[in-house]
Amino acid sequence: MSEREPARFAILPEVLAGDTADVYFLRTREILAREGVDPGVTMEFFPRLSGVLCGIREALEFLRVALGGVEVVVETLEEGLPMAPREPVLRLTGRYQAFGIYETALLGMLAQESGWATAARACVEAAGPIPVYSYGARHVHPRVAPILDYAAIVGGCLSGSTPAGARLAGRWPIGTMPHALVLILGDTVAAAEAFNRVMAPEVPRSVLVDAFHDEPEEAIRIASALGVTLQSIRLDTPAERGGVTPDLVREVRARLDLAGYARVGIFISGGLTVERIRLLRESGVPIVGFGVGSAISGASPIDFTADIKAIANHPVAKRGRIPGLTPNPRLRQVEL
Amino acid sequence: MSEREPARFAILPEVLAGDTADVYFLRTREILAREGVDPGVTMEFFPRLSGVLCGIREALEFLRVALGGVEVVVETLEEGLPMAPREPVLRLTGRYQAFGIYETALLGMLAQESGWATAARACVEAAGPIPVYSYGARHVHPRVAPILDYAAIVGGCLSGSTPAGARLAGRWPIGTMPHALVLILGDTVAAAEAFNRVMAPEVPRSVLVDAFHDEPEEAIRIASALGVTLQSIRLDTPAERGGVTPDLVREVRARLDLAGYARVGIFISGGLTVERIRLLRESGVPIVGFGVGSAISGASPIDFTADIKAIANHPVAKRGRIPGLTPNPRLRQVEL
Amino acid sequence: MSEREPARFAILPEVLAGDTADVYFLRTREILAREGVDPGVTMEFFPRLSGVLCGIREALEFLRVALGGVEVVVETLEEGLPMAPREPVLRLTGRYQAFGIYETALLGMLAQESGWATAARACVEAAGPIPVYSYGARHVHPRVAPILDYAAIVGGCLSGSTPAGARLAGRWPIGTMPHALVLILGDTVAAAEAFNRVMAPEVPRSVLVDAFHDEPEEAIRIASALGVTLQSIRLDTPAERGGVTPDLVREVRARLDLAGYARVGIFISGGLTVERIRLLRESGVPIVGFGVGSAISGASPIDFTADIKAIANHPVAKRGRIPGLTPNPRLRQVEL
Amino acid sequence: MSEREPARFAILPEVLAGDTADVYFLRTREILAREGVDPGVTMEFFPRLSGVLCGIREALEFLRVALGGVEVVVETLEEGLPMAPREPVLRLTGRYQAFGIYETALLGMLAQESGWATAARACVEAAGPIPVYSYGARHVHPRVAPILDYAAIVGGCLSGSTPAGARLAGRWPIGTMPHALVLILGDTVAAAEAFNRVMAPEVPRSVLVDAFHDEPEEAIRIASALGVTLQSIRLDTPAERGGVTPDLVREVRARLDLAGYARVGIFISGGLTVERIRLLRESGVPIVGFGVGSAISGASPIDFTADIKAIANHPVAKRGRIPGLTPNPRLRQVEL
Amino acid sequence: MSEREPARFAILPEVLAGDTADVYFLRTREILAREGVDPGVTMEFFPRLSGVLCGIREALEFLRVALGGVEVVVETLEEGLPMAPREPVLRLTGRYQAFGIYETALLGMLAQESGWATAARACVEAAGPIPVYSYGARHVHPRVAPILDYAAIVGGCLSGSTPAGARLAGRWPIGTMPHALVLILGDTVAAAEAFNRVMAPEVPRSVLVDAFHDEPEEAIRIASALGVTLQSIRLDTPAERGGVTPDLVREVRARLDLAGYARVGIFISGGLTVERIRLLRESGVPIVGFGVGSAISGASPIDFTADIKAIANHPVAKRGRIPGLTPNPRLRQVEL
Amino acid sequence: MSEREPARFAILPEVLAGDTADVYFLRTREILAREGVDPGVTMEFFPRLSGVLCGIREALEFLRVALGGVEVVVETLEEGLPMAPREPVLRLTGRYQAFGIYETALLGMLAQESGWATAARACVEAAGPIPVYSYGARHVHPRVAPILDYAAIVGGCLSGSTPAGARLAGRWPIGTMPHALVLILGDTVAAAEAFNRVMAPEVPRSVLVDAFHDEPEEAIRIASALGVTLQSIRLDTPAERGGVTPDLVREVRARLDLAGYARVGIFISGGLTVERIRLLRESGVPIVGFGVGSAISGASPIDFTADIKAIANHPVAKRGRIPGLTPNPRLRQVEL
Repeated sequence: MSEREPARFAILPEVLAGDTADVYFLRTREILAREGVDPGVTMEFFPRLSGVLCGIREALEFLRVALGGVEVVVETLEEGLPMAPREPVLRLTGRYQAFGIYETALLGMLAQESGWATAARACVEAAGPIPVYSYGARHVHPRVAPILDYAAIVGGCLSGSTPAGARLAGRWPIGTMPHALVLILGDTVAAAEAFNRVMAPEVPRSVLVDAFHDEPEEAIRIASALGVTLQSIRLDTPAERGGVTPDLVREVRARLDLAGYARVGIFISGGLTVERIRLLRESGVPIVGFGVGSAISGASPIDFTADIKAIANHPVAKRGRIPGLTPNPRLRQVEL
Repeated sequence: MSEREPARFAILPEVLAGDTADVYFLRTREILAREGVDPGVTMEFFPRLSGVLCGIREALEFLRVALGGVEVVVETLEEGLPMAPREPVLRLTGRYQAFGIYETALLGMLAQESGWATAARACVEAAGPIPVYSYGARHVHPRVAPILDYAAIVGGCLSGSTPAGARLAGRWPIGTMPHALVLILGDTVAAAEAFNRVMAPEVPRSVLVDAFHDEPEEAIRIASALGVTLQSIRLDTPAERGGVTPDLVREVRARLDLAGYARVGIFISGGLTVERIRLLRESGVPIVGFGVGSAISGASPIDFTADIKAIANHPVAKRGRIPGLTPNPRLRQVEL
Repeated sequence: MSEREPARFAILPEVLAGDTADVYFLRTREILAREGVDPGVTMEFFPRLSGVLCGIREALEFLRVALGGVEVVVETLEEGLPMAPREPVLRLTGRYQAFGIYETALLGMLAQESGWATAARACVEAAGPIPVYSYGARHVHPRVAPILDYAAIVGGCLSGSTPAGARLAGRWPIGTMPHALVLILGDTVAAAEAFNRVMAPEVPRSVLVDAFHDEPEEAIRIASALGVTLQSIRLDTPAERGGVTPDLVREVRARLDLAGYARVGIFISGGLTVERIRLLRESGVPIVGFGVGSAISGASPIDFTADIKAIANHPVAKRGRIPGLTPNPRLRQVEL
Repeated sequence: MSEREPARFAILPEVLAGDTADVYFLRTREILAREGVDPGVTMEFFPRLSGVLCGIREALEFLRVALGGVEVVVETLEEGLPMAPREPVLRLTGRYQAFGIYETALLGMLAQESGWATAARACVEAAGPIPVYSYGARHVHPRVAPILDYAAIVGGCLSGSTPAGARLAGRWPIGTMPHALVLILGDTVAAAEAFNRVMAPEVPRSVLVDAFHDEPEEAIRIASALGVTLQSIRLDTPAERGGVTPDLVREVRARLDLAGYARVGIFISGGLTVERIRLLRESGVPIVGFGVGSAISGASPIDFTADIKAIANHPVAKRGRIPGLTPNPRLRQVEL
Repeated sequence: MSEREPARFAILPEVLAGDTADVYFLRTREILAREGVDPGVTMEFFPRLSGVLCGIREALEFLRVALGGVEVVVETLEEGLPMAPREPVLRLTGRYQAFGIYETALLGMLAQESGWATAARACVEAAGPIPVYSYGARHVHPRVAPILDYAAIVGGCLSGSTPAGARLAGRWPIGTMPHALVLILGDTVAAAEAFNRVMAPEVPRSVLVDAFHDEPEEAIRIASALGVTLQSIRLDTPAERGGVTPDLVREVRARLDLAGYARVGIFISGGLTVERIRLLRESGVPIVGFGVGSAISGASPIDFTADIKAIANHPVAKRGRIPGLTPNPRLRQVEL
Repeated sequence: MSEREPARFAILPEVLAGDTADVYFLRTREILAREGVDPGVTMEFFPRLSGVLCGIREALEFLRVALGGVEVVVETLEEGLPMAPREPVLRLTGRYQAFGIYETALLGMLAQESGWATAARACVEAAGPIPVYSYGARHVHPRVAPILDYAAIVGGCLSGSTPAGARLAGRWPIGTMPHALVLILGDTVAAAEAFNRVMAPEVPRSVLVDAFHDEPEEAIRIASALGVTLQSIRLDTPAERGGVTPDLVREVRARLDLAGYARVGIFISGGLTVERIRLLRESGVPIVGFGVGSAISGASPIDFTADIKAIANHPVAKRGRIPGLTPNPRLRQVEL
């Protein structure tokens, strides 16, 4: 899959204004301003659990805009690296008022994007050489659907289903054909033929075969209607029909082969979990791709914490934490 | 807590443009336009699991803008009602092209907001008469932090920590004092006094007591420093010190009482789950509020599906579904 | 289902000859004969577990022939009654040599038939008012296939699939149509039409719909081909397609109704267990029958034991047993 | 144990007549005959689970009689070999009407005999070099008791307890002494002496020692009464006395040795399972044999299926199966 | 069982001297003496878990001697009452130096005796009306064997096996006959007869029947040898013979009755747990007593804590406890 | 830790007199005396479970006194060695009357001391090179508190908290400072200073830091007050404050180091189990000692049995045991 220049993250004014921050940070800003206190501090951000670090790229793009030139030293790990529990992955050193109200926003970016990237990584590892795509946009709020796709790609997915998400990661979106098109045109073959007529040649022809008939039957009907332009069929068998199992894939493959369509690939989606991906892959049946939804989009955020560890260069910490900077040779200073 | 006029949901242009949709809906729009097909259809949205319905208000505000006057009949359940598995909670009847590309966005709003509202409801039920507040903004992307707070309030929380989120629900944000303020001012009493000096009188004085000293000790120091203006102290004891337990709350209460501060309330946050809320509530110790984070913000979306169930007034359905409208006397037609 | 006169059990000469007995009983017969010892004894037969008693009818028919007029007092419980662990269900009083070598055969009849009848009873209770049929002949040796069907009917099944088994119980065998017929005639509709042409009118028309196409599709094709003669369709969906689930039955029912075939019943078979029968029944979908295989035919025998409890009217017992007759007011003396 | 010429399986007329078949095969025969259809087909028989293949010998003897010279190509695996799930173990190619009605009977032979042979194999493997005997005739219908013993021997048992069963396998039946003999003669020593007097010298003297007294006590009484003719004592301690445990065997062995009867072997029966056999064997106590009942006789049949995979040399299959012959290089063509 | 005047607890000089105390209490005594500090304090003793309070009687006898007339106010719950977790069961008010070094000893008496009494209570409740005896002296150090028996009797046992223990509780010790006597005299009947000859008539004749022969056989031999003087037989079947089960008791009872010894009782010991006691009792077989060993003697101590809750009448407490006296209306002031 | 000459075990007259024996041994003594029977016997003592053998030293000291010169051959394993289930660890050969009534006492010493030593060994192994001390005197009766400490030291503890117990093992008792001292002197620093003033220089200064303030805070206050005389602080954090965790130890260590007290060690007690000891040790934090209470003192006795295995040099045994001496090359004959 060819790549392109990644788009920048759009920054919402309400986030810049602190309107999405925990309100007590706004109050702290006011108190410190009125009291005339603004020491130099070092703040460390670290996760509670291990996983794939994601959100750093957006955090840096955000800080570049939000700091507006105020000097803050920024040290980070690179986007997509593995991280350990309690390992600092972002360290800010500068006047507290320069970034204090962004603690909530920065934590949120890291927590949610790392949660998604980590879940994607587990799917990708289970899939081995077979590509995985993020299909979960429908489970998350449209404001963050592109960010889900971006994080999934950082975790190892080849692309995602939303144009905005794929663009953030410098990829092209992927998709086959919705049930709606098949139902409206009344038949899978009619839908496939219309798709074939209208779409540009570079859009891959991948046709969903579970809408009306038994899958092997439908697959052969489509293959004979579209001929050599058909790249793959997509199995998305609902749980009501047993879901997509190794047996089903094996049978569809055998019947396509018997009918002379050995070159038509099989793409799988629908209720995929890490375990089911592994099972399907280990069955040895050739598969051209997995479309994964809630196993990525339903992942909980990975909780992050930000701690002030030094004030005016003196080690401090609240009760329960070790005062002073946490040694981490993996951190690198970056220019915003 | 006094209420105010709820704010409207901001609608992002990229969502309106379909840029966050699954790309195959954009392709379907193009195919149908080129083929000249645009039948009247009825589409039903239903959840996979039971829970608290949320996202309908934003969906309707969104459709009002997105449809731009095109006629579509909209039937829904009301925001905040309980919903059953597979029960239709939104039904759209009109030309398919009027709303087809918004399937991803509408599903996403319903899935994520209902997931949060349902988790909030479980916490609220466990807390009984004690108010619950949404404290999880730090776990989610700042683009959706206000939507988290809104959904938590639909689920029964009294308010949330973000100004934008509380505003969506017609409430005022709630917050005490971050560890950062205490660390920067060097002492909890100093922080409390500064807070007291600067903040308007109507902002409640609730002071975090776990930053430096043992909780009962700190609580009494604060109470003697702030006098009658102190409304409550907040226990947020970290896991490293055993978390907040019924025993700790009981002891802090007893020591405050012995010291003559019986009127100072106790507010609790930190690692609260449904089980721990229930345990703390059932311990019989008086508590003035719970601040709940990941037990709400970490809830997975509730998977929703949209099915075309009729085309040109004829019952249809893909394999695995019952053709035709699903009877649901709870649905009400609404004006956008 | 009309009944008829039950057939008698065929008695194999090798059983009468003791050739299927444990060889030590044959040796005991020889020793006692040579030693000239043949006391009057009372022997009790009892099960290790509770269940449905079955095998008594065949045991009595067998003893009538085997004893050949020698006087033995026989007390029993009636075929089909519930029995408790260690409860005597058969008591023989007479000269030991008259029946000693038949201990193995009598135990075997009781053990295996009670095992099957007990399993059948569990299915029948799960099915409630819906009739259950024994479909497991293919899992057991053809020598005992009729006895399986007989025992299943004693346990509450309405009939079984073998002519010989149904006859033993005074019923008519039941069956629909094998996959072989459909495959040979190349299409389910062709098979159904041939069945319809050839079979006598009193044979019910029940057509298997899982051979080639998706079940609802196939069901409607058959219904439209056979018209009013079609009594029911049979769902036997293989595990490879998710098995028969409440969802599938509900959908087939709905699609048949929408197509105007509300009078066509649904019969279910394939991998039924007590739990799945209960689940299907409790789903509330109307079902005209269950065909149960290995949940009955795969039941282990219920272990029975025969103990001599009195010799020459004196209580005796081996170690571990209570000497003397076990009181059981439910036993009735019968004439052979 | 010396062997002899195996006997042939007796074939019951009711099986040959199809009276024990599923009735729908009889109806199919009638339909095809009336429709004048009788294509050449290939039918494959395969198990659902792995195990020891048994029933092939009887199936071939049966087909020889049933086909009466009609030409059918038969390919099989050999009796007693291991088989894998879904591996074809029998393949018939010929006119369908030649063997169609025997599908039920052939499946039943394979299912039940393989079930028993597989369970026997597990016991034999647990027992290591110690011989295992089939003692379960009392749990199964006398019509199949010999077939149980035959299958157990195919699975690795040295012999069984029934004359008819041992004969089928070319062995001699094995047995010790029933409780009945001991009770009737009033004492174990008296029973042992009578046995010794009457039985031919080649019948091994193995005496049951649990009827009246504690096992070590009884064992020594018998040993001193029978002298050198005693080959072994049999422990069959009931569950009511703790069953046969390694401790008990060890103690009986030690007390026999102390009393000077080191040459008397110990044979074990009663409630043996694979786990208990392994435990007893691993205890290191010398044991001369295990008599196994319900661990073999109570085994469920292994479900077999017969599929038509080719008609007139064209690959076919019902939904859920791969059309065409399943490659299996282990199959060998046999002459009936 | 007739009672007698309970003996007093012997007090060891090393305990009085503080030689068995935690050494830091001795150091504290020295420090306070040298510093000239000895305030009036109130100390509360409470358990961590619920149970039966035991040890109070010995604690009071000990304090009477140890305080030697120094005035200390003592409040307690009564020996044998149920106690709740953290409920004060002993409260001492007086000069700290009067009793400070006895904290370890008092906690130890309460912890160990309450542990045993609580375990005994569970056995007694399981046994219902059947008397329970403490048979565990062999599991504990002889220095505390009498204290075990005393605590077991406080928990509800009728008596114990040691003379010193029974005397502490005002009871007579109970015992039957050891295996040693049977082995030395070579036969159970010989041992029973010697016992009968030598022992005073008021010592009950209860004979152990598991030494050499099967229990029912041995029981009948004893009964016929001792005639009417035999009160009961004792079943103590070792685990190697299956232990004492309801089946065994039922059979021994039946065989004794058949032999005309219906008046001979059955006493049970050996591996009894709460569950097995309940099982035996619920089997409905008449039992004259249970001899319980490790189910009582192996009980862990119940952890007790002593807290200073007031100094010079001011409430105090260490961190984690509520300062001031814990209200407990069940406490009664006692005279030493 | 320097050692000293171990003290001898004190022998209580009531144990010598048989007053703590099971009463049936006293009766057996009387019967045999009256019957004039006193054979030479061999008695073996063996445990039911594996563990660390303890109690042999006290048993030998006891027998030396109790036998008063009567000749008995004594074979044993050495104190502190590992022992296997059923392995004889003590074998007495002599006239039965010489030692028969001491069976209960000897079993009790072995059972309880081996139980404690075995539990201590598990703690010591979990602690690796870090010393473990017995702190459980408060859980056991003061009569056996020294014996607990002795057994714990045999199991590998470096010492115990009671003077009498340490003396038995030739060690010096260990202790820090009770909460009582801190409460009475009103402040941890005041208590530490008084301790420092009064105690001889060779008593280590180890100060408890959980009485009033947060641990790291208290630790630093003490360190700055006592200066170089402070050897270690003791963490005993109650469960109400989360107990002592690796995180807490790590933080206390870091804060002490930051404050310049790197030479002050950390000693840990409170609720330690084998698992928690392992966890703390594996956390890599330097720890100077563990004080273990109920994980040792709450261990159940290990059940021991004494069997007569020979009488007048003839092998005997009760039912369930192997007659004759059990071969055990590890046994050594000892002089009393």
